[in-house]
Amino acid sequence: MSLHIPRLGVIGVGLIGGSLARALRTAGCVGHVVGVSRDAAHLQRAQALGVIDSWQTEIAQGIKGCDVVVIAVPLGAMRSVMEQIKPILNDAMVVTDVGSAKGCVMADMQSVFGRVLPGFVPGHPIAGTEKSGVEAAITDLFNHRRVILTPLADTQPTALNTVREMWRACGAQVCEMSVEHHDEVLAATSHLPHMLAYALVDTLARMQERREIFEYAAGGFRDFTRIASSDPQMWHDICVHNREALLAMLDRFQDDLSALRQAVDTRDGQYLKDTFTRAKQARDKFCNH
Amino acid sequence: MSLHIPRLGVIGVGLIGGSLARALRTAGCVGHVVGVSRDAAHLQRAQALGVIDSWQTEIAQGIKGCDVVVIAVPLGAMRSVMEQIKPILNDAMVVTDVGSAKGCVMADMQSVFGRVLPGFVPGHPIAGTEKSGVEAAITDLFNHRRVILTPLADTQPTALNTVREMWRACGAQVCEMSVEHHDEVLAATSHLPHMLAYALVDTLARMQERREIFEYAAGGFRDFTRIASSDPQMWHDICVHNREALLAMLDRFQDDLSALRQAVDTRDGQYLKDTFTRAKQARDKFCNH
Repeated sequence: MSLHIPRLGVIGVGLIGGSLARALRTAGCVGHVVGVSRDAAHLQRAQALGVIDSWQTEIAQGIKGCDVVVIAVPLGAMRSVMEQIKPILNDAMVVTDVGSAKGCVMADMQSVFGRVLPGFVPGHPIAGTEKSGVEAAITDLFNHRRVILTPLADTQPTALNTVREMWRACGAQVCEMSVEHHDEVLAATSHLPHMLAYALVDTLARMQERREIFEYAAGGFRDFTRIASSDPQMWHDICVHNREALLAMLDRFQDDLSALRQAVDTRDGQYLKDTFTRAKQARDKFCNH
Repeated sequence: MSLHIPRLGVIGVGLIGGSLARALRTAGCVGHVVGVSRDAAHLQRAQALGVIDSWQTEIAQGIKGCDVVVIAVPLGAMRSVMEQIKPILNDAMVVTDVGSAKGCVMADMQSVFGRVLPGFVPGHPIAGTEKSGVEAAITDLFNHRRVILTPLADTQPTALNTVREMWRACGAQVCEMSVEHHDEVLAATSHLPHMLAYALVDTLARMQERREIFEYAAGGFRDFTRIASSDPQMWHDICVHNREALLAMLDRFQDDLSALRQAVDTRDGQYLKDTFTRAKQARDKFCNH
């Protein structure tokens, strides 16, 4: 039995929300897509691009009658969106989000609704580029990418199934894990690397006055710092909302970097070779297949 | 007047030495290329690939009669190579190297020859990939890439000119700077990023036992960690041979990363946004043009 969503509401029509709408339309499993945002001009652009069929600037008005609602706003806007959907929410409506951290979304839900909503399936597509905005939205953004769902004990199995099928229709591989595990894994593989890329480019930018440092950066540097071109507001939100897991990873990394610095300082060649070799083997194994 | 090198000696026929030989042959400005290495099987492979015309495992024997000699060995082998070319070197021979750090090459030269050789032009092509070996050698590796030469007061202008024209024939943009400036700029744009990528992958690899962390790494992580697939021995040599400049950059970066950690810890949103915005602007400006 294939998925069909007669009316889909997308709150926040950016790279992720827009790409999801495009993918579901291409897969032929959505009827009408209504886009919701505070910015009418932005929604008109999304409509002109064919990403959404209609739009509303009032959230409650926009999601009325929707079968599935996707909240695709920055983490910092999540709570306010929940407050606005609260009056209109009913048990038949399936709601999911795409936030890069899940503990904070659960905390927002507890705070706004006072309980776990059975129809709310927390989710996170591990996809995106350093670009943002609906203009960057593409149909195959989620194709062959992972989507992590973090259902709770009270989550309705039918709602979970709908959200799972929705992402599968976009070509994604869907998996499930706990909220805590999600936040730890993402702090390690995404949030920490973004901190390092931002910090490195900023360190160099502040040296730049005296030296044309970036002029001599090669291809490796370009790749390494690509994620430092990501949206600052979005990453501010992620830092604030996955604070504990990120701090734990930053501490772990700084300890390891200090040990590496120590090895350079004391000319401990064996330590350097061992570390570099372990890293190369891990990366070749996990990233090149 | 176009460059012609009747006999070119390449000591160390790997990615850089091999690509240089290929590029000069394609540009039609080299007669005979002799490859020199300790490993006969490797040299046979390079000859079979058409990278070199003939080979020698004895350095003195190999460079005899060469007009230009390129030393393309890891930094750790530089001194030994200099000791072996010493008996055969004459004033008509132009010698250059491709080492990723230049202060150590100058120190090796002082130590072996007791002086600055007028015919020796220290150089460094800012090119390469995470791959290594002659099999990865390609004709256009240096096309539109920078080559930094760090001539000294005693360097012969004719030797400098030959080396400059040699790299230009490969399509490279050649510039000159001091040895110290080179080592500082490369520590910032190349050596520090490699340390961060190696350290990050190793940190995650050692967490991996408990969690399938790499399974959830997205495209950004792949790009960010690509340089951690680089040759461990080569990067060991770079760490040891550009130790002072690298330690200075590591300290500077660790201070900045600690300040960023502090901002996450204290929820200093303004600091986070300011840092991320400066970094994004710097990267968009310097890397995307």
